Amino acid sequence: MSATKQILALNRFEADNAAGLDPELAERIGRRQATFGASSVLFYEQPIEMVRGEGVFLYDVHGTRYLDVYNNVPSVGHCHPRVVEAIARQAAALNTNTRYLVRIVETYAERLLATFPAPLSNLVMTCTGSESNDLALRIAESVTNARGFIVTRSAYHGNTAAVTHISPSSFKSQKLAPHVRAVPAPDPLEAPKGDIATLFAAQIKAAIDDLRASGHGFAGFIADTIFSSDGIFADPPGFLQKAAAVVRAEGGLFIADEVQPGFGRTGGGLWGFSRHAIVPDIVTLGKPMGNGFPMGGVITRPDYLAAFCAETGYFNTFGGNPVAAAAGLAVLDVIADENLIANAAQTGALLKDGLTALKSDFPQIGDIRGAGLFIGLDFTTPDATPDPATASAVINAMKQHGILIGAAGLYGHTLKIRPPLCFAPNNAEFFLETLRGILKAMG
Amino acid sequence: MSATKQILALNRFEADNAAGLDPELAERIGRRQATFGASSVLFYEQPIEMVRGEGVFLYDVHGTRYLDVYNNVPSVGHCHPRVVEAIARQAAALNTNTRYLVRIVETYAERLLATFPAPLSNLVMTCTGSESNDLALRIAESVTNARGFIVTRSAYHGNTAAVTHISPSSFKSQKLAPHVRAVPAPDPLEAPKGDIATLFAAQIKAAIDDLRASGHGFAGFIADTIFSSDGIFADPPGFLQKAAAVVRAEGGLFIADEVQPGFGRTGGGLWGFSRHAIVPDIVTLGKPMGNGFPMGGVITRPDYLAAFCAETGYFNTFGGNPVAAAAGLAVLDVIADENLIANAAQTGALLKDGLTALKSDFPQIGDIRGAGLFIGLDFTTPDATPDPATASAVINAMKQHGILIGAAGLYGHTLKIRPPLCFAPNNAEFFLETLRGILKAMG
Repeated sequence: MSATKQILALNRFEADNAAGLDPELAERIGRRQATFGASSVLFYEQPIEMVRGEGVFLYDVHGTRYLDVYNNVPSVGHCHPRVVEAIARQAAALNTNTRYLVRIVETYAERLLATFPAPLSNLVMTCTGSESNDLALRIAESVTNARGFIVTRSAYHGNTAAVTHISPSSFKSQKLAPHVRAVPAPDPLEAPKGDIATLFAAQIKAAIDDLRASGHGFAGFIADTIFSSDGIFADPPGFLQKAAAVVRAEGGLFIADEVQPGFGRTGGGLWGFSRHAIVPDIVTLGKPMGNGFPMGGVITRPDYLAAFCAETGYFNTFGGNPVAAAAGLAVLDVIADENLIANAAQTGALLKDGLTALKSDFPQIGDIRGAGLFIGLDFTTPDATPDPATASAVINAMKQHGILIGAAGLYGHTLKIRPPLCFAPNNAEFFLETLRGILKAMG
Repeated sequence: MSATKQILALNRFEADNAAGLDPELAERIGRRQATFGASSVLFYEQPIEMVRGEGVFLYDVHGTRYLDVYNNVPSVGHCHPRVVEAIARQAAALNTNTRYLVRIVETYAERLLATFPAPLSNLVMTCTGSESNDLALRIAESVTNARGFIVTRSAYHGNTAAVTHISPSSFKSQKLAPHVRAVPAPDPLEAPKGDIATLFAAQIKAAIDDLRASGHGFAGFIADTIFSSDGIFADPPGFLQKAAAVVRAEGGLFIADEVQPGFGRTGGGLWGFSRHAIVPDIVTLGKPMGNGFPMGGVITRPDYLAAFCAETGYFNTFGGNPVAAAAGLAVLDVIADENLIANAAQTGALLKDGLTALKSDFPQIGDIRGAGLFIGLDFTTPDATPDPATASAVINAMKQHGILIGAAGLYGHTLKIRPPLCFAPNNAEFFLETLRGILKAMG
């Protein structure tokens, strides 16, 4: 069972549970299921109807306030007034496509590209992280004339046909495609002497050899550099350098999917790859880019983009529209003006210290990992076996205490602590106190 | 050379032409090219910098007003105040994902689904037409256990890896994939006795046989039912019934891509397929759905969606967000309240009559086709050869006279008349007068 499937099986609404529900909620769920059909997925045994968002909080239809420790799309805070105002103002003035010149679009492209190291100087704007990764795969194929890709075992990179092939966490009956190899997540606990850099690079090298032997060739390695759905692996900083060196030595491209770590989350700069002091060949952007306005992007070298464009005409109707540019600019402004990267580092450190302190009182807490405001906390049994049941119980108890949170990892036993970047020290303290109380009550 | 490539080669900015440009415009273009690189495509030999949109008009940086006869995304009019207000209001209140219940999302889903015939009762919300078609292909594969698809020769269905395979108009050096067959566009002029229904169905049948013989099987046929990028083929109404019957008889799915004809454009109802009195197996939505807010959708039968969801977990982060639902609801409201379907029929008829009247004075006008506010007008030489050069000259002259318009078709010789649906009779008259003047001046 894939991680996503396991996590959702534990923390989602199941039709079998409808019997005990409040009739009004049951009716609402019924309407959702009637329209969305088999694609309907709702969090929690008792799904929540949301009506309002503000900063780090979401409010449900009954007026209950939830501290959001889960949602990374509203990265600068739910309904941030500066982003909302930018969207409203631009939507009222002009919303068109990139085949006309529009000043705010050029301004955004330049502002965004200025945050990337050379030679990453071209941008293609898309609408989603999925579209971004879909395009990144094709750029890598064009550059390398190869088709084989390597990902981590519980990776998630999006929902298109091509990107689902490199997203094993989405598989149900689906199997790994012939042109894809999945390597284990870079867990230092699994490495001899903790040298995860060497182990991870060796696993990638073996996968490259296998792709070559199978006739697919090697186009690239793609990773979200904080390994979000694998269970959050951030340390030691720089461990990806050996992996990147192997990928390059073997003629492949290193694709950094910044949908999760990007836009300041890891607390060490705007981009997760900078934590590893590497320069990727392609960078993909999504989720937090517009704080909820649908937008994504692909950043790469001009010659790599030209190789793809020589083969295929690419146009994205909504990609690079001026409203997206306005939202994207406002996000960059808020990150800078509200010191959100520093906050991610400081409040993240406060959270991690607090969790580490809790660990001495609660043996069910295993490893604690992460960077900035993206922390993973494992729940394990006394014999160190992954314990997704405890993770699930904590997630549901957190909901009862007004906190939204989720799980990650191959076994779904990792609490995924990933709040909006405006998460304040007092929010962290409330979270820590609540977790202490829940674990105490669980005995 | 594909149609898109040919059309763009004629009507886009080329770096070689930069010499004669106004220095300020040249500088702006340089900034665009420096950031967007090889993916930068700008309309016209002298690109336009837009600053404002309102109704059927776009305004450039010099205050020049352009009548928009090209852009179908702002379908209810550029920056329609009701859509803008709906976006601004919802963005300020709540913007989250479909794993929580949100009333406006259910309301929109129900409202939209109510416009579709049985058994089309499930909706998956996406962010773009590309994502919609990408998902539709996989649903068809899951239902049929086959992989072969049939499209028309100059079709365009979007920009993902999977969808580009069924979009020959995007090909440059790319070739048709082994699992795809392209049939000629359904041009009645090519059919014996004009019986395009029989000819088109026979061409599809031959392609199905060929896919089967090649071992790919037959998953489905996908068409935009007004054949937008093939050159606009709308008549006779109902000609697709024979095609749909063949597709079903052979075990494939009929996918109607409503990105172009949908949301009232053809003047006979909300959906283009209803013009043919067929019920597709899957319908895909995009462009005009949110009047420029990035959103798309897939509509299908519950059992078909369930077949796909059993294999693969599908989640679309931005898809079905409440701001998209608000935009989508406002679009449906405006279409109804401003009688835009009736306007598409009436103003479209006025346009078509006017163009037909012009034809008697100008022999370079060939066939005139279309439905509602989507009309194609061929330019041909005296020996009836497609004449893309005249189409291009007209497009550039139109720009000088303050009208935005483009071309379509296998040879790029078809003027694509596709204004926002609020196009009024006086807009049509101005367009007809301008076209008359241009053709007269061209001698």
